[in-house]
Amino acid sequence: EIKAVNFISVIIQPLKVVFQDVHVMIFIGFGFLMTFLKRYGFSSVGFNLLLAAFGLQWGLLMQGLWHMHDGKIKISILEMINADFSTATVLISFGAVLGKTSPVQLLIMTILEITIFSINEHLVVNVLKAHDVGASMIIHAYGAYFGLAVARVLYRPGLRNGHENDGSVYHSDLFAMIGTVFLWMFWPSFNSAIADQGYTQLTAVINTYLSLAACVMSAYAISSLVEHKGKLDMVHIQNATLAGGVAVGTCADMNIGPFGAMLIGFVAGIISTLGFKFLSPILASSLGIQDTCGVHNLHGMPGILGGLAGIVSVALGKAENGSPAMQAAALASSLGFALIGGAVTGFIMKLPFWGQPPDQNCFDDSIYWEVRNPALH
Amino acid sequence: EIKAVNFISVIIQPLKVVFQDVHVMIFIGFGFLMTFLKRYGFSSVGFNLLLAAFGLQWGLLMQGLWHMHDGKIKISILEMINADFSTATVLISFGAVLGKTSPVQLLIMTILEITIFSINEHLVVNVLKAHDVGASMIIHAYGAYFGLAVARVLYRPGLRNGHENDGSVYHSDLFAMIGTVFLWMFWPSFNSAIADQGYTQLTAVINTYLSLAACVMSAYAISSLVEHKGKLDMVHIQNATLAGGVAVGTCADMNIGPFGAMLIGFVAGIISTLGFKFLSPILASSLGIQDTCGVHNLHGMPGILGGLAGIVSVALGKAENGSPAMQAAALASSLGFALIGGAVTGFIMKLPFWGQPPDQNCFDDSIYWEVRNPALH
Amino acid sequence: EIKAVNFISVIIQPLKVVFQDVHVMIFIGFGFLMTFLKRYGFSSVGFNLLLAAFGLQWGLLMQGLWHMHDGKIKISILEMINADFSTATVLISFGAVLGKTSPVQLLIMTILEITIFSINEHLVVNVLKAHDVGASMIIHAYGAYFGLAVARVLYRPGLRNGHENDGSVYHSDLFAMIGTVFLWMFWPSFNSAIADQGYTQLTAVINTYLSLAACVMSAYAISSLVEHKGKLDMVHIQNATLAGGVAVGTCADMNIGPFGAMLIGFVAGIISTLGFKFLSPILASSLGIQDTCGVHNLHGMPGILGGLAGIVSVALGKAENGSPAMQAAALASSLGFALIGGAVTGFIMKLPFWGQPPDQNCFDDSIYWEVRNPALH
Repeated sequence: EIKAVNFISVIIQPLKVVFQDVHVMIFIGFGFLMTFLKRYGFSSVGFNLLLAAFGLQWGLLMQGLWHMHDGKIKISILEMINADFSTATVLISFGAVLGKTSPVQLLIMTILEITIFSINEHLVVNVLKAHDVGASMIIHAYGAYFGLAVARVLYRPGLRNGHENDGSVYHSDLFAMIGTVFLWMFWPSFNSAIADQGYTQLTAVINTYLSLAACVMSAYAISSLVEHKGKLDMVHIQNATLAGGVAVGTCADMNIGPFGAMLIGFVAGIISTLGFKFLSPILASSLGIQDTCGVHNLHGMPGILGGLAGIVSVALGKAENGSPAMQAAALASSLGFALIGGAVTGFIMKLPFWGQPPDQNCFDDSIYWEVRNPALH
Repeated sequence: EIKAVNFISVIIQPLKVVFQDVHVMIFIGFGFLMTFLKRYGFSSVGFNLLLAAFGLQWGLLMQGLWHMHDGKIKISILEMINADFSTATVLISFGAVLGKTSPVQLLIMTILEITIFSINEHLVVNVLKAHDVGASMIIHAYGAYFGLAVARVLYRPGLRNGHENDGSVYHSDLFAMIGTVFLWMFWPSFNSAIADQGYTQLTAVINTYLSLAACVMSAYAISSLVEHKGKLDMVHIQNATLAGGVAVGTCADMNIGPFGAMLIGFVAGIISTLGFKFLSPILASSLGIQDTCGVHNLHGMPGILGGLAGIVSVALGKAENGSPAMQAAALASSLGFALIGGAVTGFIMKLPFWGQPPDQNCFDDSIYWEVRNPALH
Repeated sequence: EIKAVNFISVIIQPLKVVFQDVHVMIFIGFGFLMTFLKRYGFSSVGFNLLLAAFGLQWGLLMQGLWHMHDGKIKISILEMINADFSTATVLISFGAVLGKTSPVQLLIMTILEITIFSINEHLVVNVLKAHDVGASMIIHAYGAYFGLAVARVLYRPGLRNGHENDGSVYHSDLFAMIGTVFLWMFWPSFNSAIADQGYTQLTAVINTYLSLAACVMSAYAISSLVEHKGKLDMVHIQNATLAGGVAVGTCADMNIGPFGAMLIGFVAGIISTLGFKFLSPILASSLGIQDTCGVHNLHGMPGILGGLAGIVSVALGKAENGSPAMQAAALASSLGFALIGGAVTGFIMKLPFWGQPPDQNCFDDSIYWEVRNPALH
């Protein structure tokens, strides 16, 4: 009876399932989350597909180079998950420059960002041996600050006072919610995907689930508090409800307990919502960082919060091994590679022959797509 | 080779997968099913996320209190599934009062409904030891009649002649179909989630799959028969096609055979569609029950049908154990707790300081959300 | 510890997961892919649900007849997957006649197409013993040419110059992308669903994943090359990005290596995009084949490419057994049954009492649905 079971299935299938969940987050989650712009839906979901499909091939190659066997790159489900992970960094950065870059610029960013990611990942995981199972640091903080550095270099003074297409309409906000909800639902798979199978993986699932649930509460509460007449803002709900998944990433597989997980998620929801309301306008006006999707609020600050939570958790002995210093070094490394790598990448993307759209064509599909009937509203 | 496998994964992963399927039903399924209203999509999917995220935390607590170990509440995948289940009752009731209640009122309903649910569930499962694997009685009938009781108490004479925003537009009906189809596809996971693993679970999957397939046939046929010129009505297709999943719930894991399952689904599709066409208007005009989503037709009557099918199936010896009397008691208990609990909850929700919207602001997102560009149609 | 595990779960659950993925492709994937038409979204997703729910019951019966045990038809997860597969042929053909046929005509097509499919499948799999794990030949080529033959018989001279409703609007194209992306993500499950569990299944997953990734690159590149000013066309992106999944189907479980898989996907993306741009207009104007969704480009030519790739792969010894002649016979059989079966079915569908819509009501939901508020654009 036992022999009738093909045991390779027992090992592969659970990973395959987690892979499919992560795949949904990458292609539906990120893709539709960015469709909130009224005239940029084709590009959001379409370029997301292009960048992710290209990025996963590049990621397989870049990450494979560190783990060659007899001069060959091995591909199994775990490598496919890691390839999807590497594309996540690019899709996060894409959010910062959404609507203001050409596909060619984005493909260049994909090559450079994934290459640098694979170096930083190797450093954090294999050299520093830091904990970052859900990748708060090496994906979320890295992807966000890389994208913000690119956005800073590509600063457009002409958009200082906004752009008529830089906003949503009713139905585009609903399309974006498809992305939000799929990301929210499958985040436990994301944070547990590369955890050790068994109880460790279960811990990562439960901590992420609880963190996200708590985060929803604080995101709604703060959104209502800071908005006019206690109303909610769709931008906050679409994004800040996910910050708990980002922030619990580093210590998702640690023994932080349900209240620890919920505390992290609750704080992340507060920080993220306040960031959208108060910090993003300042970054744009004072620092010249025009962050279309507010990735600083969804991935940047919650990613750093996750890194800090990891340092504290390791210091408190919540992990089986590791040191706070190595955790801090991993955070610093991720931020350093992101800011320097993003700045260099931004300057390369700024070269004048990549077809960067002029200001008036920003946030508009019709420059890259045959749009037969533009949205009426 | 066998030892290389971490056996905890073998137990956890199948449950984890089922949990994710149920999660999709709760957050995408219920959330988008209710976006059919033309100006209430933000609230439908947004409040659904809020209530479900809050409800699962409350549900973990309420259900956990019955199963304490050393004064502690245990959390594993099974508890997460049950927490999602407990939120389903609230989301069903939400459908009955959709568009006519404030978020604060809904949060109060969530607390009370889940608390009472956990009492009834304990009674049905542990005291009466009745069968209800797919929860036709304890979730669907309970949630529907709870919501209808609340709706009765909150009756609005001012909406007797309808409301201009209480209807769909073309695209809102398509958004709702996202919810319908995800609910339809994953219902086999819902009805088998807490079944004993192995053949019992397989039986629940197959019975649900067949019941739903048969239900689609009867829902389309009846919709076409009762509508003008043989046309189909989107309201029926969005809802009545799912009644087979509700109705087969109680006896999904019993040995009812494929034709038994299909019969239940076929009848459910008929009852549900006829209910939408003929009964809902009467409930509104004669009994003062304004049931926005028609939960009486999707969850109420099919839930009772499921309870009755369970009584008959147990009487016919289709289950390994159990008695028709206990099944009948479980149905009566679920309805009793629902009607009394819902009425009490309704009176509490009717207190004047929860921000219930005035009639003219019903079915309109803009009272709770910053709506920059309302839908044009 | 080992005994605590119910081993039936270990066998069933992996299949159950794959089944759910295939289910999503059938009901969400095909359903929403066809919502691109501006006024035919209700019919696209609604008739898709009807045909698939009916077809899976008919498919269970037809396929079950070949594998009776003691005069009974067995149903388990594998049979449910195969039933879903049999409906895929109908949904592909549906794409060719989308907007131009009544529900009754489509139900007749469903009965005939699945019946003939189950004969051809039996012939290909059990008699010829040909390889076609991902069904490039027996589902995709068969479904496409069956549908094209039906479309040829149902040729409408009145639509020679197009129809005002035969096109998309902005939001309908975004709804269609939901279908595209879900099909794209879960195609590895489709192509590996009936593969032998273990390494063979893993091979099918990886080959499909790589083929699809490569196909996205070529589809975007060619779309940009052939369109005005280097713009992308949503029709190509919605469809041609999936051709790699179709084309790698036959040899997905063979030892074709990552570059073999990517080559197949890359070529499929080119052929498919060029087909949409240049071949479809010729088929319509010269051969009288009005292929609404362009299934010839997504399923027809890539399906044949898959069949040819299978012949070559077997000839090169990439499969453990099989012969190129049998592969060629399987392809010929699939095309033969499709063309003859489709033509006969078309003539039956053309009989004057099935309610075929007149030309002016084509591509318009309002002939079959209560449409209260048509889309404004």
